[in-house]
Amino acid sequence: MWRAPSLANIRLADGYLRPRQETNHSATLPACLDRCRETGRLDAFRLDWKPGREPVPHIFWDSDVAKVVEGLSLDLMLFPDPQRERELNEYVDLIISAQSPDGYLNTHFTAVNPDKRWSSLAHDHELYCAGHLMEAAAAHHAATGRRNFLDAMVRNAACIASQFGRNPGQRRGIPGHPEIELALMKLFGAAGDGWLADLAAYFVEERGQSPNYFTEEARRNGRWLPELEYMQAHAPAREQTRAVGHAVRALYLYAGMADVAAHTGDRELLDAVRRLWASVTERQMYITGGVGSAAEGERFTNDYHLPADSAYAESCAAIALVFLSHRLLNATGDGRYADIMERALYNAALAGLSLDGTHFFYANPLEVDANTHEHGNIHAERQPFFWCACCPTSYARFLPQMGQYACSIGPGQVALHFPAALEASCPLDANGPNGAAAQQLDFSVESGWPYDGRARLAVREARGEVWLKIRVPDWCRSPVLRLRGEPLDCQPLNGYVTLPHPCRTGDCVELDFPMPVRLLSANPKVTSCAGRVAVSRGPLIYAAEEADNGAGIASLILPETPAFAEIRAPGLPTGTVALRTGAWREADVSEGALYHDRALRRSETDLTLVPSALWGNRGGKAMHIWLRRS
Amino acid sequence: MWRAPSLANIRLADGYLRPRQETNHSATLPACLDRCRETGRLDAFRLDWKPGREPVPHIFWDSDVAKVVEGLSLDLMLFPDPQRERELNEYVDLIISAQSPDGYLNTHFTAVNPDKRWSSLAHDHELYCAGHLMEAAAAHHAATGRRNFLDAMVRNAACIASQFGRNPGQRRGIPGHPEIELALMKLFGAAGDGWLADLAAYFVEERGQSPNYFTEEARRNGRWLPELEYMQAHAPAREQTRAVGHAVRALYLYAGMADVAAHTGDRELLDAVRRLWASVTERQMYITGGVGSAAEGERFTNDYHLPADSAYAESCAAIALVFLSHRLLNATGDGRYADIMERALYNAALAGLSLDGTHFFYANPLEVDANTHEHGNIHAERQPFFWCACCPTSYARFLPQMGQYACSIGPGQVALHFPAALEASCPLDANGPNGAAAQQLDFSVESGWPYDGRARLAVREARGEVWLKIRVPDWCRSPVLRLRGEPLDCQPLNGYVTLPHPCRTGDCVELDFPMPVRLLSANPKVTSCAGRVAVSRGPLIYAAEEADNGAGIASLILPETPAFAEIRAPGLPTGTVALRTGAWREADVSEGALYHDRALRRSETDLTLVPSALWGNRGGKAMHIWLRRS
Repeated sequence: MWRAPSLANIRLADGYLRPRQETNHSATLPACLDRCRETGRLDAFRLDWKPGREPVPHIFWDSDVAKVVEGLSLDLMLFPDPQRERELNEYVDLIISAQSPDGYLNTHFTAVNPDKRWSSLAHDHELYCAGHLMEAAAAHHAATGRRNFLDAMVRNAACIASQFGRNPGQRRGIPGHPEIELALMKLFGAAGDGWLADLAAYFVEERGQSPNYFTEEARRNGRWLPELEYMQAHAPAREQTRAVGHAVRALYLYAGMADVAAHTGDRELLDAVRRLWASVTERQMYITGGVGSAAEGERFTNDYHLPADSAYAESCAAIALVFLSHRLLNATGDGRYADIMERALYNAALAGLSLDGTHFFYANPLEVDANTHEHGNIHAERQPFFWCACCPTSYARFLPQMGQYACSIGPGQVALHFPAALEASCPLDANGPNGAAAQQLDFSVESGWPYDGRARLAVREARGEVWLKIRVPDWCRSPVLRLRGEPLDCQPLNGYVTLPHPCRTGDCVELDFPMPVRLLSANPKVTSCAGRVAVSRGPLIYAAEEADNGAGIASLILPETPAFAEIRAPGLPTGTVALRTGAWREADVSEGALYHDRALRRSETDLTLVPSALWGNRGGKAMHIWLRRS
Repeated sequence: MWRAPSLANIRLADGYLRPRQETNHSATLPACLDRCRETGRLDAFRLDWKPGREPVPHIFWDSDVAKVVEGLSLDLMLFPDPQRERELNEYVDLIISAQSPDGYLNTHFTAVNPDKRWSSLAHDHELYCAGHLMEAAAAHHAATGRRNFLDAMVRNAACIASQFGRNPGQRRGIPGHPEIELALMKLFGAAGDGWLADLAAYFVEERGQSPNYFTEEARRNGRWLPELEYMQAHAPAREQTRAVGHAVRALYLYAGMADVAAHTGDRELLDAVRRLWASVTERQMYITGGVGSAAEGERFTNDYHLPADSAYAESCAAIALVFLSHRLLNATGDGRYADIMERALYNAALAGLSLDGTHFFYANPLEVDANTHEHGNIHAERQPFFWCACCPTSYARFLPQMGQYACSIGPGQVALHFPAALEASCPLDANGPNGAAAQQLDFSVESGWPYDGRARLAVREARGEVWLKIRVPDWCRSPVLRLRGEPLDCQPLNGYVTLPHPCRTGDCVELDFPMPVRLLSANPKVTSCAGRVAVSRGPLIYAAEEADNGAGIASLILPETPAFAEIRAPGLPTGTVALRTGAWREADVSEGALYHDRALRRSETDLTLVPSALWGNRGGKAMHIWLRRS
């Protein structure tokens, strides 16, 4: 129905997303490159590893380099820079140099374990790495117009296609970690060869078939096998009804399914994805848009099991939920997908990254205190890198993409998903004279989004018949839209109001989505949130943190009807709206005892809240999103 | 200062502990024996395992059989039965038959891995198993008077002593899982050989020395090593200040340290144990007496990190806290150790076992809901057995020992720790004519303890000068004691009131420890309990569960000042006191949404609470110990 505009055609100019793109350009990408260099990930592509040398190129190293190269490519579309482009092309040349004559490309299995190619799909991330290299190649092509990486990855895909399939002599295998499915569809989008889409569909459909490839493989290898749910291999993809297992694997698979369904028009497959998305977002999603509750297995657990303190909510999973919701939004034009895309983008996804772009959360607890139990990838403070570096490198490639979440284009229409300040130039087709678009909409949005619900959309140029659709966010109860000063009917259809006539150059639409503070309660089945509320304003979920309130956040109590003032957030970027209200602070009457039966006392205090995605940037450890209320 | 009376001299007659001993006799012990037989644990002692046969005798199997044999022995002291004794002796003969000529005794390392003896002390549980066999041998000797098992285990200890120590040619090793330390002291208590105590002291003192044995061993074996804290090898035992690492390993070590200190009079070592006990009980203990918050590593985490929903609180750890507190109580005569011993015994320790004695919790969450995430050893319902069967077999040997926690004996004194109904016959020495005691106190207690705070202690016979000390529980604010009808001064010293004159035959002491319902709050640093209270009465911590209140326990809210009625608990043993109060139930206004901003509503309801150790015996899944209050 819709598709994303080219990143080159959307330029964010807001105070919330755009600064993250700038720090990605100046800090995150260089930092990730440095880490890839220091740890040997880049040099692994020289294929000169010798037995005994440490470190040994790891089975998932290629994916980290791929994601950084993808990020560098996408970043180039936002910040053109010939020097950066030259360096990018050198990395690409290095990657391509590691490709075998038969198209195979994987540093670990070429340099370390040449006899083990494709031997352990459940564990070994070969197809996962290939997928990320394909995404990088598509981005590199889009950014530079060069085909060398793209062609190399099509050859790589051909190598994979020769190995995998249902023909005699082929393996009926699938990867333990989905990614190749959506990557092949992206490669198809760039290269156009239909067999790439067919191969993606094969990997989608073969998943969970019987006899189970992973079970057989584990028997062959005498190797331990995680539960099939972990690898998304417990049931055929289109028959799955509940999101289970490793959250990132699940969401990458669903994204690939959505891509295949959008290409083939397979309604049943699309319905399966919508069903699984509902399983995630209606019963297994944190209020921030974080998903995957359990550290053990990085996975979905039970419906409504959403503990705030031990939340895993991996950064990559929040980003993947943006990816998936964006695909479903474009496939269906249904605003409910934009609601969740916005929630995950503005809250959970960005929370994993420091404002300076150099420190990352792998897991994103919704509650941190002095007693927080840090272990494994669960930290109370953002870290510079991780041994398993998926999250930092996910940011490197995610941040440049954010512009495309603001609007989509379709035949004769442009849909604005949220009115962040931006400049857009959207050709809708290529049917005009000289290959230019017969339909095109260039427009700008001026706003203080996400802190101010008022915005002004100005149509710079409208060519051909282009209808503009504007999303009314789910959280907005009294939207006002004005076209050339005249109020519009604001009854949205599927979440969108369509302007009453095609856009005309000079049209000006005023949007007003009032942002009163809302106190959100969880479904009572989310027992961890009983007696607590989350404070929300506009698309943002707020948090109380130590920098403003001292360490004892759990002793703070919101009044029944708090009166919030909007204030300038101390120590946060200009424009950030913080909230302040009178509240209660429970006194410590324990006298040091672990348990006691003394009467509790409380006194009046102020409580300050800041956007939860910005927490942990001003020192102090404690942070709570869910707050007591009485 | 004090010591435990012989189990044969204390006969519990109460309605709370005694029935557990009876079900242990009739159900738990037979069930554990069946499981040991079915799984091959018993037959492993035949040493006829052949390569390729499944199952392979596991490195910790011997400990399970040992604990069951220990339980059978101790049970025999409560329920003499010639047939059971014959069977017990057959198991003992089978165990002894597996001993090597050099005294070594371990089925795995004799039948499966004979070349690997003592090669991997960090992981391989050899000394742990030996310790449990020593405890079993001491119990078997005490119950039957037979020395065969005892002598065999002294030979085993001699084999160990020849291997381990600081002399040339010996290994300066220690076990990854403490147990041998306390077991050698128990063996010393039964056999009397001073070198056994010396060997125990060696294992205590060698722990955590530099160079670290485990680090060197791991380097030698090229094997992964858990963090040293996990194995309690991070610092010399007597220098440790904070309880860290695997909870059961920690508490077994501390118990062994206490035994060595009590024997040697080493005040510094005893102070270290007291310090570590305080670290556990003052900052890391659930309100039930459960300890060890984290499933991952079964370990202590941070001070005040005591989440109710994801609590690990292993059954074995609660039992071990009883063991340790009992030792410190006897070593110091300080009632604070009795307070915690009572709390852990009456709550956390017994919660792990079904009332019919056949089902067990490994982990003991303090909160279970429909959304509870079961994984690993964390279950929402008790299970018949576990692959790692430490907890069921811990019950088999723990339950018969409970009588000794009611009172201790010392030179010229008897200390009553809690007035459960019982019959006691306590010889305090062996200095009288014909080897009988010159000092002896025989007494009975009649009471409805732990449900009724009133008790009557009758001195059946007092011989010699015997002073009686009676503990005033920490939770009791208005104790009343009467001797022959006359009120006594109830100012306890170190938690105990000493009767004003030595006991006389016919003395009758009336105890009245009123048990009003108390609402307990946690220290505000225990953030998981913020805004919630636990309901307590006497030594018991209560819980609200589904069988009485429906599934939505998290929606129930105690009023600010609840008025509790004591009622007969439906479906629980006669005499069990349940509590009922008016309360609030929050309505579900979510209309199925995961999050919403609707106004909450509440209505009046009844709330019923039962002793938390008895939860999960009447169907229904949900249970909360910490309750909301407004």
